[in-house]
Amino acid sequence: MKKSYKHSLYLILVHYPVVNKHGDVIASAVTNLDLHDIARAAKTYGVKNFFVVTPLKDQKELINKIISHWTIGSGAKYNPDRRDALELVCIKDSLEDVVKHVVKQCDSRPQVIVTGAKNNSRSIGFDIFRKMIQTDKTYLLVFGTAWGLSEKFISEADYVLEPIKGCTNYNHLSVRSAASIILDRLLGRN
Amino acid sequence: MKKSYKHSLYLILVHYPVVNKHGDVIASAVTNLDLHDIARAAKTYGVKNFFVVTPLKDQKELINKIISHWTIGSGAKYNPDRRDALELVCIKDSLEDVVKHVVKQCDSRPQVIVTGAKNNSRSIGFDIFRKMIQTDKTYLLVFGTAWGLSEKFISEADYVLEPIKGCTNYNHLSVRSAASIILDRLLGRN
Repeated sequence: MKKSYKHSLYLILVHYPVVNKHGDVIASAVTNLDLHDIARAAKTYGVKNFFVVTPLKDQKELINKIISHWTIGSGAKYNPDRRDALELVCIKDSLEDVVKHVVKQCDSRPQVIVTGAKNNSRSIGFDIFRKMIQTDKTYLLVFGTAWGLSEKFISEADYVLEPIKGCTNYNHLSVRSAASIILDRLLGRN
Repeated sequence: MKKSYKHSLYLILVHYPVVNKHGDVIASAVTNLDLHDIARAAKTYGVKNFFVVTPLKDQKELINKIISHWTIGSGAKYNPDRRDALELVCIKDSLEDVVKHVVKQCDSRPQVIVTGAKNNSRSIGFDIFRKMIQTDKTYLLVFGTAWGLSEKFISEADYVLEPIKGCTNYNHLSVRSAASIILDRLLGRN
């Protein structure tokens, strides 16, 4: 039996434009377990689609190969739960292409909210965004790979979500951990 | 500046005894990103040590090789933040060996609490355990790899933590996601 949930949230994992450890804008390589872990978390919390953004042809082919194995290849029979999660994955060249896709599905322009480990003067809190997504608006929740989204990308977003604070000053979670924790803070029921 | 925190929590990732998809007890293989992701989350939430349990010699050698690269090898210079996290890792043959290690550090026997995706009649809630760890008692929070900890292992634990509920009936998070979410629920400050 499917539980109902009200939100209309999409997840995006961006491989370009992100920055490297020196702050240069780069296109990062795809990590296999980013796809698995974030798709599984997205499925757990009722996310509508998990968009993986990269403009690189070879990287798109790699993602397709991984996803196909689990959605239509032998992996789908071996582990149907994994198939259900990875079916959420949708590959796009850019944020603009994601927006176009979602506009077609929802008939309204989604709002873009970016995540990151750094403080930002525009940050909104988890409690505020948790309430925002319990409306009929559509949101794209964006995560960056490598050392995070480029400054330009962040400045162009509609909203910036506050960073995760643990209980130390160490703030170097993997994007897989961050996405899981943020989904739980926004949509967890326990 | 180091923030202070009261809890005395240790994390354990068990590779034996766990079960495969058919329910048989097995020793699972080590996954590189389990070490990285869970160590980084452990560091974020002030966990004292991250014990990786496996009795297999070749697997212990593999863990040692990975950890050494980041703690004393070239990785330590390339990414000191990763070093700080992976320095929490400690390899042990069994839960008994972890308990012995912790007893030496704390001078008292720690309580064992296991996690898992299945409901259990003994489960305690996140709120209850969150309060329990804000005392001077020491707890070992245990995660299983593969299809989860063996029934015998679970039945012998002092406590069982309730499963994570998302907002659907899908409950197939990776152990990396589950560990991150559970640490945040128990120790997150935002």
